[in-house]
Amino acid sequence: MSKNILSTPREDGFRMPGEFEKHEGCWMIWPERTDNWRLGAKPAQAAFIEVAKVISKYEPVTMCVSDKQYNVARELLPSDIRVIEVSSDDAWMRDVGPTFVINDTGDLRAVDWRFNAWGGLLDGLYFPWDKDDKIARKVANVENLDYYKLESFILEGGSIHVDGEGTCIVTEACLLDESRNPDLSKEEIETYLKDYLNVSKIIWLKNGIYLDETNEHVDNIIHYCAPGVVALAWTDDETDPQYDYSKAAYEILSNEMDSKGRCIEVVKLHIPDHVIVTKEEADGVDSVDGTLPRMEGDRQAASYANFYIANGAIILPIFGDEKHDKLAAEILQTVFPDRVIETIYAREIILGGGNIHCITQQQPDRRE
Amino acid sequence: MSKNILSTPREDGFRMPGEFEKHEGCWMIWPERTDNWRLGAKPAQAAFIEVAKVISKYEPVTMCVSDKQYNVARELLPSDIRVIEVSSDDAWMRDVGPTFVINDTGDLRAVDWRFNAWGGLLDGLYFPWDKDDKIARKVANVENLDYYKLESFILEGGSIHVDGEGTCIVTEACLLDESRNPDLSKEEIETYLKDYLNVSKIIWLKNGIYLDETNEHVDNIIHYCAPGVVALAWTDDETDPQYDYSKAAYEILSNEMDSKGRCIEVVKLHIPDHVIVTKEEADGVDSVDGTLPRMEGDRQAASYANFYIANGAIILPIFGDEKHDKLAAEILQTVFPDRVIETIYAREIILGGGNIHCITQQQPDRRE
Repeated sequence: MSKNILSTPREDGFRMPGEFEKHEGCWMIWPERTDNWRLGAKPAQAAFIEVAKVISKYEPVTMCVSDKQYNVARELLPSDIRVIEVSSDDAWMRDVGPTFVINDTGDLRAVDWRFNAWGGLLDGLYFPWDKDDKIARKVANVENLDYYKLESFILEGGSIHVDGEGTCIVTEACLLDESRNPDLSKEEIETYLKDYLNVSKIIWLKNGIYLDETNEHVDNIIHYCAPGVVALAWTDDETDPQYDYSKAAYEILSNEMDSKGRCIEVVKLHIPDHVIVTKEEADGVDSVDGTLPRMEGDRQAASYANFYIANGAIILPIFGDEKHDKLAAEILQTVFPDRVIETIYAREIILGGGNIHCITQQQPDRRE
Repeated sequence: MSKNILSTPREDGFRMPGEFEKHEGCWMIWPERTDNWRLGAKPAQAAFIEVAKVISKYEPVTMCVSDKQYNVARELLPSDIRVIEVSSDDAWMRDVGPTFVINDTGDLRAVDWRFNAWGGLLDGLYFPWDKDDKIARKVANVENLDYYKLESFILEGGSIHVDGEGTCIVTEACLLDESRNPDLSKEEIETYLKDYLNVSKIIWLKNGIYLDETNEHVDNIIHYCAPGVVALAWTDDETDPQYDYSKAAYEILSNEMDSKGRCIEVVKLHIPDHVIVTKEEADGVDSVDGTLPRMEGDRQAASYANFYIANGAIILPIFGDEKHDKLAAEILQTVFPDRVIETIYAREIILGGGNIHCITQQQPDRRE
């Protein structure tokens, strides 16, 4: 009931919808690896549970978990959250999960990109990553969806943002990095995006968030809020390396048209005060050769743009920076007047290298 | 979306339907363990593939497979068979899977019995069995079904047969064996069956098939074909220990009334010539301490009663015994005049200790 389709979504009339369009549900993965999450991943699990619980107020949530942790997750999560066995190498459903595409007659399919742990042998974050690379296909099978399996093209879901109407935003820092698809030109990469997301316009930002270990994923620096509206991580501190990154992105976005010829409204979300890894936090992580270490004093790539849009709500990470936490929530409430702003203290998630958008993947509603 | 319900199916108006009622689909598990299946389980996998393919002509099939073998199974199975990750200790979905129950308004739920590998530390067939014991719960979660999880009562799906109208047939050899529920009386065991299958009459056979390593599961000696009609494994050879077993079962069935007060028509299916493990077959199995060995000269518990009823078809194991293979197919065609009799050469399955009924579990149709 899950066929690998050899054509492309573009040929078949399927497109990736905007995250702000209606969802059937949300997919997540249970964090387990003790060489990325401190204290046996227990604090991270508590944070993921909170995210899952809040999202499940607005749409169904499925948590993927290994056999080993299955009973733990099933007991800790409320019964209205579905818990299924799917092995993983870590917990970043945005990047390893399928990109769902829909057509106008209510069909849903999945795109199964290749995954190499954000850089493979060159600068990947762990080894091996074979379990992660199977997840999209497994999710498609669980849902009885046909899927487009790419044989070699490497892409993470967090490295793209679409408006659902033909526009895709990416960063050069990530998509042109030699650790992804070194044999492809920028034009060839554009062709893959156009064919598999069914978009006609790619907007290339230069950078993402400073020190972002994903080679600066676009989903940590911006968020497509609606066609023609983008939230952008910002800083007023001109001495921060992030200033140049965000300023350049602002200029590109302000001067580009989207696929429909619209100007893009850019909404600034000032980043929080720096999130610095403490000694206690670093000491709680198993040090393992081959996995990116978590060191005392490391600055984490914290950004409010890394939120999740659920049906009727925004799930916004906050960092204990009262001023900027409050400001981000207020700004997003004006951008999304009809959605509840749900804030979640996300320090345990950013300590692992990402945030709420990175650990979620929406499944669009096929009935709309 | 999968709640553990603390009441019983009987209290809630749910019943286990007969296997001959309409199905939504069929569940199976991919065979992998090399200490039960010869030659790295490859011949068994080929046989399971054939079973899955034939059943999928009549109803949707889901194959459960470990992460390690996921890509192997996904590539070898046709795309109309759903392949999902579910870890197991072996491949007997009848015994480890959920018992599905339905009500009159179209709801479907699962019963999650405890499983101890056919006898736990006393005479279980392998150790450990913790993955098997989680499968019913995982299947319920995949399907978004609420489930009744029994805390301690041990039962395998192959040790019961129901008519869907209030009658259940079991064997004393299995259900009263001290390796299952030694602290429960026969009456207390009856109460569990009545509460969780929603039946009012239990018919107790003494034995099953001679040398059946499951402590003589009822599903290897009989099959409920319709309310009031039971197929019974038989032999005319009075020197075979099976003769006394089958004769006693025949007498009990012929003299009992079912829950509706009907007499039971018993249809005899003569067993095949003995299936004896060859040296080559025994040598292909990894010998592992703690797992039941497969020895040259062992007589396997081969029986035609171990078939599967699919929508519109009977999936019948055959053994290369031309006379009895043909006879079984002919008799079942008269019992099931509206179903196609599909025969599958099942030597590789019986070598592992069971047959087609043991490796399948029907999910009843909730819409009827």
